[in-house]
Amino acid sequence: TQHAHYVVAIGKKDVDIRTIGQLPGVRDVHHVSDDYKLVSRKWRVKPTVLDLGDGVTIGEGTLALCAGPCSIESEAQMEKVMNHLVENGVRLMRGGVFKPRSSPYAFRGLGMDGLRDFHRMARERGIKIVTEVMQVSQVEEMHDFVDVFQVGARNTQNFNLLDALGGVDKPVMIKRGISGTIEELLSSAEYVFSGGNEKLILCERGIRTFETASRNTLDLNAVPILKAKSHLPVIVDPSHGIGIREYVPAMALAGVLAGADGIVYETHETPETAASDGAQTLDFDESARLIRNLRRVYQLRGELE
Amino acid sequence: TQHAHYVVAIGKKDVDIRTIGQLPGVRDVHHVSDDYKLVSRKWRVKPTVLDLGDGVTIGEGTLALCAGPCSIESEAQMEKVMNHLVENGVRLMRGGVFKPRSSPYAFRGLGMDGLRDFHRMARERGIKIVTEVMQVSQVEEMHDFVDVFQVGARNTQNFNLLDALGGVDKPVMIKRGISGTIEELLSSAEYVFSGGNEKLILCERGIRTFETASRNTLDLNAVPILKAKSHLPVIVDPSHGIGIREYVPAMALAGVLAGADGIVYETHETPETAASDGAQTLDFDESARLIRNLRRVYQLRGELE
Amino acid sequence: TQHAHYVVAIGKKDVDIRTIGQLPGVRDVHHVSDDYKLVSRKWRVKPTVLDLGDGVTIGEGTLALCAGPCSIESEAQMEKVMNHLVENGVRLMRGGVFKPRSSPYAFRGLGMDGLRDFHRMARERGIKIVTEVMQVSQVEEMHDFVDVFQVGARNTQNFNLLDALGGVDKPVMIKRGISGTIEELLSSAEYVFSGGNEKLILCERGIRTFETASRNTLDLNAVPILKAKSHLPVIVDPSHGIGIREYVPAMALAGVLAGADGIVYETHETPETAASDGAQTLDFDESARLIRNLRRVYQLRGELE
Amino acid sequence: TQHAHYVVAIGKKDVDIRTIGQLPGVRDVHHVSDDYKLVSRKWRVKPTVLDLGDGVTIGEGTLALCAGPCSIESEAQMEKVMNHLVENGVRLMRGGVFKPRSSPYAFRGLGMDGLRDFHRMARERGIKIVTEVMQVSQVEEMHDFVDVFQVGARNTQNFNLLDALGGVDKPVMIKRGISGTIEELLSSAEYVFSGGNEKLILCERGIRTFETASRNTLDLNAVPILKAKSHLPVIVDPSHGIGIREYVPAMALAGVLAGADGIVYETHETPETAASDGAQTLDFDESARLIRNLRRVYQLRGELE
Repeated sequence: TQHAHYVVAIGKKDVDIRTIGQLPGVRDVHHVSDDYKLVSRKWRVKPTVLDLGDGVTIGEGTLALCAGPCSIESEAQMEKVMNHLVENGVRLMRGGVFKPRSSPYAFRGLGMDGLRDFHRMARERGIKIVTEVMQVSQVEEMHDFVDVFQVGARNTQNFNLLDALGGVDKPVMIKRGISGTIEELLSSAEYVFSGGNEKLILCERGIRTFETASRNTLDLNAVPILKAKSHLPVIVDPSHGIGIREYVPAMALAGVLAGADGIVYETHETPETAASDGAQTLDFDESARLIRNLRRVYQLRGELE
Repeated sequence: TQHAHYVVAIGKKDVDIRTIGQLPGVRDVHHVSDDYKLVSRKWRVKPTVLDLGDGVTIGEGTLALCAGPCSIESEAQMEKVMNHLVENGVRLMRGGVFKPRSSPYAFRGLGMDGLRDFHRMARERGIKIVTEVMQVSQVEEMHDFVDVFQVGARNTQNFNLLDALGGVDKPVMIKRGISGTIEELLSSAEYVFSGGNEKLILCERGIRTFETASRNTLDLNAVPILKAKSHLPVIVDPSHGIGIREYVPAMALAGVLAGADGIVYETHETPETAASDGAQTLDFDESARLIRNLRRVYQLRGELE
Repeated sequence: TQHAHYVVAIGKKDVDIRTIGQLPGVRDVHHVSDDYKLVSRKWRVKPTVLDLGDGVTIGEGTLALCAGPCSIESEAQMEKVMNHLVENGVRLMRGGVFKPRSSPYAFRGLGMDGLRDFHRMARERGIKIVTEVMQVSQVEEMHDFVDVFQVGARNTQNFNLLDALGGVDKPVMIKRGISGTIEELLSSAEYVFSGGNEKLILCERGIRTFETASRNTLDLNAVPILKAKSHLPVIVDPSHGIGIREYVPAMALAGVLAGADGIVYETHETPETAASDGAQTLDFDESARLIRNLRRVYQLRGELE
Repeated sequence: TQHAHYVVAIGKKDVDIRTIGQLPGVRDVHHVSDDYKLVSRKWRVKPTVLDLGDGVTIGEGTLALCAGPCSIESEAQMEKVMNHLVENGVRLMRGGVFKPRSSPYAFRGLGMDGLRDFHRMARERGIKIVTEVMQVSQVEEMHDFVDVFQVGARNTQNFNLLDALGGVDKPVMIKRGISGTIEELLSSAEYVFSGGNEKLILCERGIRTFETASRNTLDLNAVPILKAKSHLPVIVDPSHGIGIREYVPAMALAGVLAGADGIVYETHETPETAASDGAQTLDFDESARLIRNLRRVYQLRGELE
């Protein structure tokens, strides 16, 4: 693949990169090794649009909405969330079955049993599944029951996991690290992309700072910067980004005007009783209102000069 | 002044607060000393709207737009900026005459001479002036030539300056500290308010984090949080918040949907030749487009559910 | 195990903790789930000392010194390092065979082949091996060739890896996360400990801040705090902590007086040619001098009031 | 003054630096304006030693010890502290009479009355005074009663104050900003130095990070870096640096091995009743023990290779 004045070597993982550097006409190979190239807009100018099938796409031209609980808890819970999504025309559902928890004693998710139920119920309703994969051995296990693999903020630099996802034919959404830089997020995406999987989504979910009035500091600066640096779609997660239920809608709307290609947020029938993250989870009324507002804002964005 | 179940003592700076604590029926006085009270929405529920005269207000009900160069450079420069503002219906102009610079060898501004010219030209055009005051001795000197005193990010905790501004009858816009918390910004406002000056504006301008792809990390989370905690107007400064010209408009628009009462940004006829901050400064075409877009977004905000 | 006025349940991973909470006389179970308990000094007052065999211990009573290259590169390189260590009485050698790299194109280590050579050569010389394990599948593979498993700063919250290491009978050294809190480090240790492996070492290696004059900000505050909160040994890594070769010795010495039980640092015959991290690696002269100085400082520490 | 291959212009504040740049043989003048030069070790290789008179010096060759309460409270309190210092051979006393407080309702110090008493009592006992100056107008007022002006962490970039201190003939100790970089601290020192006052001390006192287990993150990395970059003495403040009384001594000792020229810490007869900062203040027994240990560590430092 050639662009401008340089050549990018793709899918050459098993070749010693130095042998390429010695070919006639090649320079700048040293710098490739420190940087992202394949996910760069310098190489692929046109924005990437992912097609998940059944008319669901992520990328320029649509506003991807993805909602659901932090954790999958039961069939009854999922049914309620799915009904809410279907009623509001949302086609992507998030929900964790493997949960990374900083304490070993916290709820860790329903695992593969939960995922199989999640998949079956979603298929019946035309809903696509976004769920977190935590380790290499789960990649194969989860593969047939997942529409988008999510790499969580604590695994953004789990390079073995990224390598494994490079060999998969399903989209991968990579969350920015807890204190990850924009460049590190792009480098993590480069891992997957250079492994052969070009179906990638970048997710801004807030970074760790000294501020304690919010759970994280949602870095909306990252949205236009990522969109300029990379051809990959960018999603904003306002739930983790601010961590306080009543302010999630404002940050979701702001995220759209910052240029996001989609929003992923947490919703639950009764946030107060959620197994995890209830304090940042919208109930269905709040969620429905947010969906309507997001669509109006997205429409306006298209009309701005 | 009474609200809910507690009494707030206002303007009692010279009284030992402990004597109040010993009055019958008084409790919680110890906690007052660690916290902001007068700027809190718990005490004054209705949002504060500042009236600058000539139909210019800052606060709920309007979107305050304030633009101009980082530094006042010359009469010719000011005339061009003012013409641009008048053409676009912007009534507030920013521009520094005293410039805080981390190096002692950098340009430090035109000083009082520049301010007098700034004031005369602004008055002729119905424009209100927002400019930074750096030290106590300037408060009196600048007073008659300023519409809004700006306290810069390096002076957010210059308590003597805050005290001095507490005795002034002009509005004060306090920028969040370089690494200031939301609570510290409110406490700094409390200094001015408790000194007797209730005309205050809070400004989110980005905080210092590990991220180096942007100049600062604009913390839009702070907007809904400040609006919920305080009755004071909140302004967003996207120019310092991201520091890169091409991304300033996106962050300005996002700021409005986060709930800001206004936007302050940098514009200059030829940003490339600006005496300071050129890399984050819009030219007049970009500025005019941003103004039109900001107004459309603000209008939509009023129509959202 | 009982201490003071409370009972700690150990090794009960498969029991629903709520059933314990309902037993007569039990309270505070809710808080256990949010916190570290088994690694806490409130439960085990006496400092833990790890015995690695052949007279090598880590913990109170000795200063553990561990040195070696960032990456294992060749037998010749290892031989030189080992000779240097033996001559200076250092019994622990660090060296990576699996290297986490933020770019997919960087050198990723010699893998299991390198580890087997490392192990054989170390055994011949009475040296113990500390090396990084990056994923669950490597735990079993590496097990027989490792004396201390190192969990790197990007894997501090790789909970599956921590779970797997909980089932192993070899010591585990957990590095603090890139922007990890002290509490998170202790919670990660709790994962391993509650899985049954009590052989743990905590490692302070610097955190990410806004400062760019150093690679990381070595947080020596963490040393006395960790020693007070936990009974586990605490090691300081000045090489990653400051990232600049000429300042590594000063930070190593400071670490001992802050209370560290050991120091791990990078050394290489010719740092300029090292496959990774050369800029923070000592040559053998510098290393030998540091070892002598560290021992003098450690001796003095024992004599202070 | 000439060094290596470049000439540094000193004390030329009122000359337009560009006129120098046009002289024959001059280059690099543009970079001077962005950077510190006069405080750099590239210009003055030999470490600066400040002589405060009566045999009290700060800089290479001695370990400067400075102790005292956060706030001056009364003559009785000062007398006790001074007796403690005299008994232990400490010649520098810290104590605030103007206190920067984030809340306007907190204790703000005894002011000039307190300082006059402080000065009189100190003179009688051969003790030198280090105390904070908060604003320009205080510089002249405090001048005759102060031995070292302290610029607090909230005023590190109060450029008017730095300018004013540039015209004074008393030493100035500049604390690193709350989230100040090493380069910013040097630039602030450059302000004072370029104003004509070369009697400067740099103070590391911890920076703001995400860590909440300590008050600040004491950045001991800054000590060897500052010592290498600048010829000025560097002092460490472990009291603010960690903020927890029982860990202050460990960090003080670590600071000496990191290369500090002195330690400033808080002590009070009864820390529990101190008007401010009691939680990080040593009682006299702890202080006396620390002084003895600091001297032993400093002596050892001189003996290390």
